[in-house]
Amino acid sequence: MVAKFDSSPEAEKETARIEAFSDGVIAIAITLLVLDVKVPTAQELGGASLMRALLRQWPIYFAFVTSFLTILIMWVNHHRMFRVIKYSDHWFLIINGLLLMSITLVPFPTALLAEYIGHAYAPTAAAVYSGSFILIAILFNVMWRYASRGGRLLGAQHDRELAATITKQYRFGPLLYVAAFALAFFSVAASVGLCMALAVFFALPGTTKRARVTAQH
Amino acid sequence: MVAKFDSSPEAEKETARIEAFSDGVIAIAITLLVLDVKVPTAQELGGASLMRALLRQWPIYFAFVTSFLTILIMWVNHHRMFRVIKYSDHWFLIINGLLLMSITLVPFPTALLAEYIGHAYAPTAAAVYSGSFILIAILFNVMWRYASRGGRLLGAQHDRELAATITKQYRFGPLLYVAAFALAFFSVAASVGLCMALAVFFALPGTTKRARVTAQH
Amino acid sequence: MVAKFDSSPEAEKETARIEAFSDGVIAIAITLLVLDVKVPTAQELGGASLMRALLRQWPIYFAFVTSFLTILIMWVNHHRMFRVIKYSDHWFLIINGLLLMSITLVPFPTALLAEYIGHAYAPTAAAVYSGSFILIAILFNVMWRYASRGGRLLGAQHDRELAATITKQYRFGPLLYVAAFALAFFSVAASVGLCMALAVFFALPGTTKRARVTAQH
Amino acid sequence: MVAKFDSSPEAEKETARIEAFSDGVIAIAITLLVLDVKVPTAQELGGASLMRALLRQWPIYFAFVTSFLTILIMWVNHHRMFRVIKYSDHWFLIINGLLLMSITLVPFPTALLAEYIGHAYAPTAAAVYSGSFILIAILFNVMWRYASRGGRLLGAQHDRELAATITKQYRFGPLLYVAAFALAFFSVAASVGLCMALAVFFALPGTTKRARVTAQH
Repeated sequence: MVAKFDSSPEAEKETARIEAFSDGVIAIAITLLVLDVKVPTAQELGGASLMRALLRQWPIYFAFVTSFLTILIMWVNHHRMFRVIKYSDHWFLIINGLLLMSITLVPFPTALLAEYIGHAYAPTAAAVYSGSFILIAILFNVMWRYASRGGRLLGAQHDRELAATITKQYRFGPLLYVAAFALAFFSVAASVGLCMALAVFFALPGTTKRARVTAQH
Repeated sequence: MVAKFDSSPEAEKETARIEAFSDGVIAIAITLLVLDVKVPTAQELGGASLMRALLRQWPIYFAFVTSFLTILIMWVNHHRMFRVIKYSDHWFLIINGLLLMSITLVPFPTALLAEYIGHAYAPTAAAVYSGSFILIAILFNVMWRYASRGGRLLGAQHDRELAATITKQYRFGPLLYVAAFALAFFSVAASVGLCMALAVFFALPGTTKRARVTAQH
Repeated sequence: MVAKFDSSPEAEKETARIEAFSDGVIAIAITLLVLDVKVPTAQELGGASLMRALLRQWPIYFAFVTSFLTILIMWVNHHRMFRVIKYSDHWFLIINGLLLMSITLVPFPTALLAEYIGHAYAPTAAAVYSGSFILIAILFNVMWRYASRGGRLLGAQHDRELAATITKQYRFGPLLYVAAFALAFFSVAASVGLCMALAVFFALPGTTKRARVTAQH
Repeated sequence: MVAKFDSSPEAEKETARIEAFSDGVIAIAITLLVLDVKVPTAQELGGASLMRALLRQWPIYFAFVTSFLTILIMWVNHHRMFRVIKYSDHWFLIINGLLLMSITLVPFPTALLAEYIGHAYAPTAAAVYSGSFILIAILFNVMWRYASRGGRLLGAQHDRELAATITKQYRFGPLLYVAAFALAFFSVAASVGLCMALAVFFALPGTTKRARVTAQH
């Protein structure tokens, strides 16, 4: 209660540093998979043409693009939460850290999926892939609820419509990823497709005022 | 319309975080190729002297320097856009993310070119190289047009001359890179030369006021 | 003395840049070990199932999670110090740099411990592991004492209770890690357990005002 | 001239982003060599004990510590310049970019020196090592002179004593590194020793007011 009114610029500075640190970690995670995009050397070509050798690497490009976009959407969501979150405390730092750890891992299940897609072990890979999103969706919920419960860490004049949109949009995330996880054992395509549909859903702005203004433009 | 006038410091903070995140991603992309600059071990030298072994690696140095300078020029251009862009919205974040993804990939086509220059597959490498710049030039245009169309995300008091310069300078970028792409199949040297000439062109400050002031100094 | 009163915004900007640079270094260090989390390729599986191959890698996951959490706690502590530190000087930059260097190294002893746990050389690995924390604990103390001695670099209106908590919490860190180091030669489990207990201890907020406010919430 | 007086907060924001980007690049460069600090696997030990295997890697630790400290000192110097530099222009961004490129490369000559110290090719390695510092020292001078000539990019109320100290301290850097380069062909120890003495010299605060105040403390 009191914390909310002491020294507003102090508070601003605190979330500024959390955002800066988060941006650093997410920026690294988002570029990590580029390290796997290797140039095929002239010796490795064998009889194949360079174009064919480049095309043969498609799962690596697929993993890179998918990881990048997925983490980008997570960054946009993280960024959006901080349009209403203006305060911070000790446990919030810890929860944010756990969320960052799970985001950092995204390139791993994505590369796993890329490696085993079309393979007999594809269901295992799809399960690990959707399973990692269950974890991330739960952590986004925990972080948002911790911050927004009773307005604990929200700004005094925060955009209430945006806060409501976030609450609504996040609520069913974990359950839907659990469905994607279960689907993995029946149909890899359906499981991965649901994950991607959910990514598109979280990439949508919701129905916030600012977004509508822009749309009317 | 309304978005432009609500809470100016809020807006400032928003572009601040986009810039910070972009800086992080670009900073990582710009240093990634350093990881390929490996020290030849004493065992690898064979009969050669260390100096000869170091010189033999010239394509790696070439790729590092070229990638670094290319990405640096992109950063300068990104930075310059944000001297007039003062607002942000959801889709702007997504477009900026796609631009960052394409910038992050620059070390790959550059290393490919360095590996195959002088080789029978050089035209393929030069085509991939110039092709990646078509994509980046298009994304710079999309981002700039999205932000500047009707002044959507520009500051109320923005430098109109600088905005006009950017619009003019970007307009022909994609087409000229398409020309470089077509040239790759006739002359690798001409294709790569055109790409480098275009990089120098985008490194020029244009004719903005500040640049002229500095030049008169 | 005088330094404390000259140009307060200048001072703010200075610690802002130290914090930004520190965040960058720590963000990289915290994600480095992800590079070791490799996808087992289809060829490497041998007769084993993918799930078995993934589980066989547990020491790598363990090292990643432990390193991440350990460095996260260090970041939270670094961040907390800068809630009261508002000034900077030349030697403070150097001390902070040495602390960052030691934090950057954390993934190495952690990976070492993960590789040799349960092995005949486990005591050596545990000694290196706890030994690296002795160094870090000493550097945290040196940095805090340099900044807080006589209030040298603290803000004029700093939270005195928080400063006292930090002093108290850091005081016995080095000695307790020396105990963990000595224990390594008798019981690896006890040594590593003590290190982890200490990590949890440093993850606690202490008894600062803000933390209590939050708890009452 | 005019540039100096237009929109002071604008100017502040501009150097803020240069500093942020520079911090990002330097933070990555400073941690890159950690990737070379590999854990010897149980299979690689052969008959040797783990402690012996760890000690055998000393040149890698030496390269890591030396690179880290060298780049740290460069960061401190970069940071110090920006205590008086408050404006920016197009060419300043480019010069800063070239300086960052050269700083990014530091781990390479350092690893080279570590690999060949005590080897017949040590003079070549020492020449490359000191040669890279000639380049960096020149770029620091070019950047500082570009910014400070006629006060071009300095703040109106900048600390004149600090500016004079920087000018004086940088002036002989390139020449002394040329001497270290020449020495490499006669005595590797003398060449490397001179480089390290110069690093210590640039780590000194000079005789700025703030430093003296702190010392009197």
